[in-house]
Amino acid sequence: MAGKLVSFVPVAPDSHFPIQNLPYGVFRPNAEASPRPGVAIGDHVLDLSVLARAGLFSGPLLTNSDCFLQSSLNSFMALGRPAWKEARATIQKLLSAEESTLRDNTELRVKALFRQDEVKMELPAKIGDYTDFYSSKEHAVNCGTLFRGKDNPLTPNWLHIPIAYHGRASSVVISGTSIFRPRGQTSPVDTQSSPSYKPSALLDFELEMALFVGPGNSLGSPLEVDFASDQIFGLVIMNDWSARDIQKWEAFPLGPFLGKNFGTTISPWIVTVEALEPFICDAPVQNPSPLPYLKESERKTFDISLEVAIKPEEEEKASIVCRSNFKYLYWTMAQQVAHHTVNGCDLNPGDLVASGTISGPEQGNFGSLIELSWGGSREINLEHGGARKFLKDGDEVIMTGHCKGDGYVVGFGTCSGKILPARS
Amino acid sequence: MAGKLVSFVPVAPDSHFPIQNLPYGVFRPNAEASPRPGVAIGDHVLDLSVLARAGLFSGPLLTNSDCFLQSSLNSFMALGRPAWKEARATIQKLLSAEESTLRDNTELRVKALFRQDEVKMELPAKIGDYTDFYSSKEHAVNCGTLFRGKDNPLTPNWLHIPIAYHGRASSVVISGTSIFRPRGQTSPVDTQSSPSYKPSALLDFELEMALFVGPGNSLGSPLEVDFASDQIFGLVIMNDWSARDIQKWEAFPLGPFLGKNFGTTISPWIVTVEALEPFICDAPVQNPSPLPYLKESERKTFDISLEVAIKPEEEEKASIVCRSNFKYLYWTMAQQVAHHTVNGCDLNPGDLVASGTISGPEQGNFGSLIELSWGGSREINLEHGGARKFLKDGDEVIMTGHCKGDGYVVGFGTCSGKILPARS
Ligand SMILES: [Ca+2]
Ligand SMILES: [Ca+2]
Ligand SMILES: [Mg+2]
Ligand SMILES: [Mg+2]
Ligand code: NI
Repeated sequence: MAGKLVSFVPVAPDSHFPIQNLPYGVFRPNAEASPRPGVAIGDHVLDLSVLARAGLFSGPLLTNSDCFLQSSLNSFMALGRPAWKEARATIQKLLSAEESTLRDNTELRVKALFRQDEVKMELPAKIGDYTDFYSSKEHAVNCGTLFRGKDNPLTPNWLHIPIAYHGRASSVVISGTSIFRPRGQTSPVDTQSSPSYKPSALLDFELEMALFVGPGNSLGSPLEVDFASDQIFGLVIMNDWSARDIQKWEAFPLGPFLGKNFGTTISPWIVTVEALEPFICDAPVQNPSPLPYLKESERKTFDISLEVAIKPEEEEKASIVCRSNFKYLYWTMAQQVAHHTVNGCDLNPGDLVASGTISGPEQGNFGSLIELSWGGSREINLEHGGARKFLKDGDEVIMTGHCKGDGYVVGFGTCSGKILPARS
Repeated sequence: MAGKLVSFVPVAPDSHFPIQNLPYGVFRPNAEASPRPGVAIGDHVLDLSVLARAGLFSGPLLTNSDCFLQSSLNSFMALGRPAWKEARATIQKLLSAEESTLRDNTELRVKALFRQDEVKMELPAKIGDYTDFYSSKEHAVNCGTLFRGKDNPLTPNWLHIPIAYHGRASSVVISGTSIFRPRGQTSPVDTQSSPSYKPSALLDFELEMALFVGPGNSLGSPLEVDFASDQIFGLVIMNDWSARDIQKWEAFPLGPFLGKNFGTTISPWIVTVEALEPFICDAPVQNPSPLPYLKESERKTFDISLEVAIKPEEEEKASIVCRSNFKYLYWTMAQQVAHHTVNGCDLNPGDLVASGTISGPEQGNFGSLIELSWGGSREINLEHGGARKFLKDGDEVIMTGHCKGDGYVVGFGTCSGKILPARS
């Protein structure tokens, strides 16, 4: 029984990071130190570069690898699932209460374990390309209704194609990075007027999850849908900050650009597919049936509870505004990967592929303020004080997610960011 | 008089690469050698890593730099215009007929000069992000007319915003790389039918130019339009291959994705802003006047003649199908850079920013087949044999561009690629 596995490192019962999780990240022990890969365990981080230098990755695939001596996880991601399983088995054994190697070696333990609140987290990978899908049917129906009316809210392609656009890789930032309210052009108020240039008045979040790509494929060689999950290293929570007024004016006909690329926040710990395996569940039935290249032998996804809270600067506590779940998504990650490469497009280790806003069937499940406030037509009362249609300066948006195991939690930690006033 | 400057390296009168040009690229002397920066001179390439190791970059900004010992030009691009001017002055002096340092040192000359037809060109930079603008008014009017009819062919935002979308950086390839015809989804033939999955039947080119970004800006710090050209290292020719049937079915509401990201070809030699300075000319007058953040003190661009030719596999000669000019573009590169960063989005050294398809006022100036064949409604007769509406397997598309100087040419070489049949 998986719940019986325990670590010698103390782990609180509600910790997101028990020995069953072991998510990967990149951290600096202090501001001067170089970034290196680590694994979260309870309130601590295990330094994988220290373990690698001590020769503790002695399995056949990792013994001669320098992947944990790099400043990003790209090399490790490139190795693929057999090496990922080997690393997980090694780390899980070294951290277990029964294993003495690390537990009883005080010098090594002191060198290898840091308190999470004393380290600085960095982006876990050098993100070559970032793609954002649009895979929640509930979100697409809500947006379609708000922007084009309630008749035929889905565009004709939506049920056939996992729709996506390319996002900006350079402005993906790690949780905790503040975001300046963007300035930009917004629509003229009428056909006689000019557009305005001003700070966005309709600043929003989008609750998403994103996968990091493993080995990838070469240009011209598509990945088959039933093998696509071999490419998924793990998942993070993502906030696709969106300036709705900028987005609305610019996005036709070529899609979102400045309304999105001023910042995209991800949580620092990548929860692996191995850690998520106990939480596999059925994905929604698809009707109409997709084309053969998108048809999976088995439609599986993960049951991951997600939450979004807003903490206004003047309030003491954050208020939850959305509860959703990864399993609501209509298009699976395997379908996203297969579709992304069907034309021969190459994916590479460390690429980020996001789900799109994850909304659910009820109003309380909507993953963005434009949905929650129904296009700004109603105010959302915050349980611990305040009310919002869109984000105000000083607001902190805190996203989190977890899977409930048998006596343990596999969690994602938090993905948070605070809105700073537009720069003058 | 600039035309009097000559090199000791022989340069044919119609060569694109006289001593007045000196474009930068990255090459391998042979398949086993590591990539290194070079400069084109006549039919030769000058190896900058050899010059750097010989201590010949002795100016104050480059003497201690390892930028020419890298496998890409990103480090050099990051240094900014003063270092670029210093490098150009050094290289121009070393190559000039009057200067003995390289001319009379046989050993050094043999080590540093390679024939272009014996080296392998690589991508000149690691492209972090690639953005494609849509800055030709003639192209936007043509596309608007074809897709939405001849009343109001421009969307309401077009005259106010340099419209753009994020492209895929990983599938940018160097001239000479063959492109597999992509497969993908295309529209149902009627509302009762399902979409098809098949090789694209409407494969097209787009004649574009693209700039490489220099030092860039940090996230949250926009670049002002009158300083934006400090960020422009130089230009290449770009072919944004486009599958019109895939693009049409997928692109609403989030823009182009698989219809574009199967391959984007650039020419290998980056012609610098310094080399283009003699060819500065006025940019088109803008009416309505743009918002202040897009308003330049001086509206300048470059007079660069561009051509596209198609060589069918079974024909001996390529036929020119388009003659256009960079100066037709309505939005300048400075406006593109200012707009791209107005919301705080960061640009980084080696980022690629493309112009969009460059069409001109006459039919012979249209920069894509969808315009030339007017949506496939008329066939284009190729002067040296064959006729086309869209590209066939085996077609090679060859783009080129040059500026005519006083007794010399500053050229871009070629940007070419051949269409291979869809993989089974
Ligand atoms: Ca999104
Ligand atoms: Ca284009
Ligand atoms: Mg974003
Ligand atoms: Mg392309
Ligand atoms: Ni401790």
